[in-house]
Amino acid sequence: MIIDIHGHYTTAPKALEVWRNRQIAGIGNPAQMPRASELRIGDDELRESIEANQMRLMRERGLDMTVFSPRASFMAHHLGDFQVSSTWAAICNELCYRVSRLFPDHFIPAAMLPQSPGVDPATWVPELVKCVNEYGNVAINLNPDPSGGHWNSPPLSDRHWYPIYEKMVEYDIPAMIHVSTSCNPCFHTTGAHYLNADTTAFMQCLTSDLFSDFPTLRFVIPHGGGAVPYHWGRFRGLAQELKKPLLKDHLLDNIFFDTCVYHQPGIDLLARVIPVDNILFASEMIGAVRGIDPETGHYFDDTRRYIEAAHLDPEQRHRIYEANARRVYPRLDAALKAKDR
Amino acid sequence: MIIDIHGHYTTAPKALEVWRNRQIAGIGNPAQMPRASELRIGDDELRESIEANQMRLMRERGLDMTVFSPRASFMAHHLGDFQVSSTWAAICNELCYRVSRLFPDHFIPAAMLPQSPGVDPATWVPELVKCVNEYGNVAINLNPDPSGGHWNSPPLSDRHWYPIYEKMVEYDIPAMIHVSTSCNPCFHTTGAHYLNADTTAFMQCLTSDLFSDFPTLRFVIPHGGGAVPYHWGRFRGLAQELKKPLLKDHLLDNIFFDTCVYHQPGIDLLARVIPVDNILFASEMIGAVRGIDPETGHYFDDTRRYIEAAHLDPEQRHRIYEANARRVYPRLDAALKAKDR
Repeated sequence: MIIDIHGHYTTAPKALEVWRNRQIAGIGNPAQMPRASELRIGDDELRESIEANQMRLMRERGLDMTVFSPRASFMAHHLGDFQVSSTWAAICNELCYRVSRLFPDHFIPAAMLPQSPGVDPATWVPELVKCVNEYGNVAINLNPDPSGGHWNSPPLSDRHWYPIYEKMVEYDIPAMIHVSTSCNPCFHTTGAHYLNADTTAFMQCLTSDLFSDFPTLRFVIPHGGGAVPYHWGRFRGLAQELKKPLLKDHLLDNIFFDTCVYHQPGIDLLARVIPVDNILFASEMIGAVRGIDPETGHYFDDTRRYIEAAHLDPEQRHRIYEANARRVYPRLDAALKAKDR
Repeated sequence: MIIDIHGHYTTAPKALEVWRNRQIAGIGNPAQMPRASELRIGDDELRESIEANQMRLMRERGLDMTVFSPRASFMAHHLGDFQVSSTWAAICNELCYRVSRLFPDHFIPAAMLPQSPGVDPATWVPELVKCVNEYGNVAINLNPDPSGGHWNSPPLSDRHWYPIYEKMVEYDIPAMIHVSTSCNPCFHTTGAHYLNADTTAFMQCLTSDLFSDFPTLRFVIPHGGGAVPYHWGRFRGLAQELKKPLLKDHLLDNIFFDTCVYHQPGIDLLARVIPVDNILFASEMIGAVRGIDPETGHYFDDTRRYIEAAHLDPEQRHRIYEANARRVYPRLDAALKAKDR
C-alpha cells in the first residue's frame, strides 16, 4: 500500500473560513466572538470536500492512506490568545477526525496543537491527549515558531518543549515539524518560511543532544527536509566541527524526511543522499503548489511519479511508501492491522 | 583561469579581533571606545595570514583569483550604531584592499557596508563609493537582515533598498546577498541563518518585480542558493501560481548561484537544475566547514573537485570557472584585462 504521511485539510467547506474570520474579528471585540457551536458543517459537506479533491487525486495516483491534519497555513498560532487557539485547534482537529470516520480506509488524523506564543507547552497536552485517545490521532504537527516568522520561542532542543516530548514518547507518536503562515513580510509562507523552518529545526537538533534525553522521540521534517539534503555535506561537516557523532548516529534514529519535493532532480538527490529508512512518502496535496508542471504535463505535487522514476528498487520503494511510515507512526500501523483483522 | 567569487578574510591577524572586542566593549562605555588608528597590522602580518592559508589552498587546488571580502560572520551589523558599523566596515574593507595590493594577481576586493539596523541605506553609499573608486572593489556584500536573525528590515524588493541598487547599477557591480552572524538562538549562523537567508532573498525577488525597476541589477545568492535548486520545482510552481513569468525569464538575468555546496550530490543537482550561465564557481574557504570529509578524504570546501566530477563539458566548466564571473563582475573582468596588457 501507499501511505501519504503529509496531507492537510486545505479543502474544508467555506463555512470553516467564515467562522475563523469571525473569530479573528472577535479578538479585538469580544461581543463579536462566535461560539464554536455556531459552526455547523454536515457530513455531506465534509464528504464532498474530500471526495472531489483529495480522494479523487488519491485514486488517480494510486495512494491508499493519508495522514491528515488541519491546514497548516491556517493554524496561525500567532492570532489571539490561548483561548482563541485552543478553540480553533479543537474545531480543526474535530473536522479531521470526522473525515477519518467518513473515509476510515483512506484518512487517519494528525493533530494541531493550541500553540499560542509564550504559553507553556504543558497547556497543549490536553488537546493532544484528546486527539490520541478519543480521535485516534497517530501524530501531531508541532510548530517550532508559533509567532509566525519572528522566531522568538526557544529552539526545539530547549527544555521549554519537554512537556510535549514527554507525552509524545508516552504515546509513541511522532511530530511533523511544521510552521504556519508567516506574518513577517520578509518570509513568503510556502516559498521561504516553510523551508527555512525545516532547515532551522534540523540544525537545532544537530547542535543539541535532544535525542539523548529522548531516545525514542521522532521528528518528521517536511518538504524534503528544507535545504538539508542538498547541503548534506555542509551538515556532515558542521557536525564534525561541533564534535558531534556522524549524522546517521547522531540524528537518523530520530529524524525523518518526507518526499514533498516537487521535481525529479530534487527527489533523486533525496534518494541518493538520505538513507532509504529515513524517507517517508508524502505529497502535501492539495497544498502550496497546485498547478501542472509545464515541463512534465503532470501536477507538481504528484510526488509518486518522482519516486517511481528514482533509482530505487521495489523493496526500497516499499519502505518509502509504507514500511517506514508504519515504523515511525506505530499507531498508524496498529490501526491498519486492526482493520485487516 | 579559475575565479573563486566567494572568499572572506576569515584568517585576519588576531589584532583585528582584539580591536573589535574593544570596540564592542566600548559600545556601552564610550571612554573605552578605541580609535581606528590604534589598530596596527603590518604588511608582513597580512601577507603571512594569506600565504599560509588561502594562498596555500588556492595553489593546491589550482585556483587563480579570489573575490575577497571581510569575514561575513564578523560583520555583525546589529552591534552598536551606525558610527560603530561604519568604523568597522572601513577597517575591514581597508584590510581586504591591502590584501589585494599585496597579492594583486590573486585577490580582488568586495566590500561590506555599514548596514546598521534601521538606518537609511543611502548612508551606506559613501563606503561603497570609496571602495569602488579608491580600492578597486568589484562587488559588495549586501546583508538582507542587518538585525542578525530578527528579520525586521523590509524585503529586498522594497524601495527602502533602492539607494544602494541605484549605485550598484551606476557602477555595474553585483551584490552577494549574505547575512552575518545570528544573534537569534533559533538560528545557527552557518547551518541555518545563512541558508535561510539565501532562500528568503530568492523568494523576495520571485514575488516582486524588482528587476523590472532595475533590469541590470545582479544578485549572487551564495551557498548554492540555499534551498532553492533542491526545490526548483516548488519555485517554478509558486511562480506559476503567482502569475509570474517562467523563472528563467523572471529572475535568471539577474540572479546567480555560487557553488558553495559541500558534497558531490549537491553540486550535481545544482548543475542539473540551474542553467550553466547562472552558476559561478566559489568555495567560501576557509569558512564554515573547514574539515576533511571522511567519506572522500578531501576538504569539504574543496568545491573544485565536485565541479570536475560533475557532468559538465569543458566549455561549461569554463563558464562556471571564469566566463560567468567576468560577465557578472564586469569590474573584475576589466581589472583582469588591464593586468594582461
